[in-house]
Amino acid sequence: MPVNLQAPDPQSLFPVPGVTLGIAEAGVRKANRKDVVVVSLAEGSAVAGVFTKNRYCAAPVQVCREHLAGGAAVRAIVINTGNANAGTGADGLARARRTCTSLAGLLGVAPEQVLPFSTGVIMETLPVERIEAGLPAALADRQPAHWARAAEGIMTTDTLPKAASRQVQIGGVTVTVTGISKGAGMIRPNMATMLGFVATDAVLAPGLLQPLVTRAADASFNRITIDGDTSTNDSFVLIATRQAGHAEITSLDSAEGQALSAAVLAVSRELAQAIVRDGEGATKFITVQIDGGRTEDECKLAAYAIAHSPLVKTAFFASDPNLGRILAAVGYAGIDDLDQNLIEMHLDDVHVVTQGGRNPSYREEDGQRVMKQSEITVKVNLNRGAASVTVWTCDLSHDYVSINADYRS
Amino acid sequence: MPVNLQAPDPQSLFPVPGVTLGIAEAGVRKANRKDVVVVSLAEGSAVAGVFTKNRYCAAPVQVCREHLAGGAAVRAIVINTGNANAGTGADGLARARRTCTSLAGLLGVAPEQVLPFSTGVIMETLPVERIEAGLPAALADRQPAHWARAAEGIMTTDTLPKAASRQVQIGGVTVTVTGISKGAGMIRPNMATMLGFVATDAVLAPGLLQPLVTRAADASFNRITIDGDTSTNDSFVLIATRQAGHAEITSLDSAEGQALSAAVLAVSRELAQAIVRDGEGATKFITVQIDGGRTEDECKLAAYAIAHSPLVKTAFFASDPNLGRILAAVGYAGIDDLDQNLIEMHLDDVHVVTQGGRNPSYREEDGQRVMKQSEITVKVNLNRGAASVTVWTCDLSHDYVSINADYRS
Repeated sequence: MPVNLQAPDPQSLFPVPGVTLGIAEAGVRKANRKDVVVVSLAEGSAVAGVFTKNRYCAAPVQVCREHLAGGAAVRAIVINTGNANAGTGADGLARARRTCTSLAGLLGVAPEQVLPFSTGVIMETLPVERIEAGLPAALADRQPAHWARAAEGIMTTDTLPKAASRQVQIGGVTVTVTGISKGAGMIRPNMATMLGFVATDAVLAPGLLQPLVTRAADASFNRITIDGDTSTNDSFVLIATRQAGHAEITSLDSAEGQALSAAVLAVSRELAQAIVRDGEGATKFITVQIDGGRTEDECKLAAYAIAHSPLVKTAFFASDPNLGRILAAVGYAGIDDLDQNLIEMHLDDVHVVTQGGRNPSYREEDGQRVMKQSEITVKVNLNRGAASVTVWTCDLSHDYVSINADYRS
Repeated sequence: MPVNLQAPDPQSLFPVPGVTLGIAEAGVRKANRKDVVVVSLAEGSAVAGVFTKNRYCAAPVQVCREHLAGGAAVRAIVINTGNANAGTGADGLARARRTCTSLAGLLGVAPEQVLPFSTGVIMETLPVERIEAGLPAALADRQPAHWARAAEGIMTTDTLPKAASRQVQIGGVTVTVTGISKGAGMIRPNMATMLGFVATDAVLAPGLLQPLVTRAADASFNRITIDGDTSTNDSFVLIATRQAGHAEITSLDSAEGQALSAAVLAVSRELAQAIVRDGEGATKFITVQIDGGRTEDECKLAAYAIAHSPLVKTAFFASDPNLGRILAAVGYAGIDDLDQNLIEMHLDDVHVVTQGGRNPSYREEDGQRVMKQSEITVKVNLNRGAASVTVWTCDLSHDYVSINADYRS
């Protein structure tokens, strides 16, 4: 059961001028599944993305990187579920390219103007002919208002579609930021991949798109973890159709740039957190905040050590304030000269640890009260600097094991 | 249920001249538990150890390090279960010291000649007075033949005691190496700590003991992982009573040094593997072998990425040859310039992956056959160098979650 997450109301998702979305049932892996999504972008749109750091990256990720590096104007995105086209070697690369060529032919653009995305089982051959057969239906289905429908079309074992939308005033006009995402873990039937797509009609100088997507990812999709397994296909793409009609934003630090950045970050963060809320088997949404680090990097070490620890995660599942497990995770995080005697820890408002040991006034019933909540914040202060980092994660439940131990077929 | 592990036959454990062991029921956490073990060492014994790298190390670990660094001749070891004395600040340190002082008083030695070890719940006050009250009974119980009994006395949620023993001929005399260990994870009721104690009567030059224990740990206790959580109390101690009567070994590379090293390594490895076989919820024993790395460090990155991946571990639990998960783990292991197209993978004798993609002759039924076994070897060849590393781990089952999600009380 997702943690405090609802399916998006289609009425709450503002269309983005210049973007249309359509879906089809192509039978990539199973019949009667919405498994192909096509997103068309108006001429003049700009696109930037961040992709998995997994060295075993999937064929479509390699093709996306190539096409973006080549500088051709992206006019369409095609996403299939059911098959990740990862671990498929040269043949997989050829099949990802063929998907682009086929869609480009139907749209009258060059193959380099199409970005392909795949999510699903690893190490199996992509049935590209089925995707091709589904493209005409997806194209015919395209509408500016189909964001919620597209969010459904990219789901794998997500239990709910994920979408978010904001509007901001920039230079006297209303600018829209709308996006969709999917998670979460690598799932029954062994799906791989986190995908996020966010579009805006803001008129952004093209050179600012990459820094904006990187910054947004670093504070959203790069700050979530379900099980620590980085997928082969993770992708987050930001689209600017530049149709809003305000004066071009030439700096992200200008008032307009900051307003847009804040809206993009808000949408990205909502989408990223939705993935955690719908994490495999999740029953709790956990915020891990590390303060007082010397650098952000060491804060990240501590935050992910906590967020990845199976012992910490099972304690959250059990509502057991067995908080020594959190201290132990901080201790093995890899901060070589950490002084354990400086560490403070809070669970929400409860002061659990002071000077590295149990706070004399801490009462287990207070810890127990917080641990029973569906949303919990763990705050650890390293007291050795001014850096902070926040990551979001979920607990580790029986259902996580059930979901991932189910046989694929 | 432990994987292919039996309780040791006490007759199979050779006593080590110069070592006696005794246990007591001190009621550290619960009544009627064998929870205190005392090991006495004859005069002239030498001791070296390796300890947790967790910066949040427990008070007894800090005291052990101090006493070993001070150079006093160690004459006794005292181990309690039920309480880890970790995350306990200055008070915990005082209590660990008091344990040493009390035992030293009873034995007529200096406190610095005692090494303390604790395993159990974190962040709770050590009931040192109960341990003190139990010491006379433990001392009275001491016998050279009590290795199996001591193995029982250090158990926490281990389902079986763990001990191993070997004899080798050195300089015409029989030399014994015998040890005990406990695991495994940080367990119901939230126990912490892997502990290993190995003793030999070999006459080893005192300066060789530390390199020998480090080398043995690096190829045994430092190559196992249940859940990736490094405990606050992990300790592995090697004792040489020097009573065997052969000429002193002055080099580990001599024939005698190599014979002794091999026996110590064999005992250490058996003890370490026993911890994995009895890992929390384990149903399978997995050997992960990485070959063809440029360095041992990068082989370790890949090996632990596989061994720690919850997705890989649940696939083993399910006997599901979902082997793309293993490739994905290698990909995110952190080897920055890894070329995925060079990777080969075998599951036991089955050739699954060639040149980074699915081996055309691989049949899923062959993978399935191996995955159903209780012992499985995963071999990944990075094909970029000559380094190799092997680690041992277990699967991730429903019982792991149950054990760790049980409330402590």
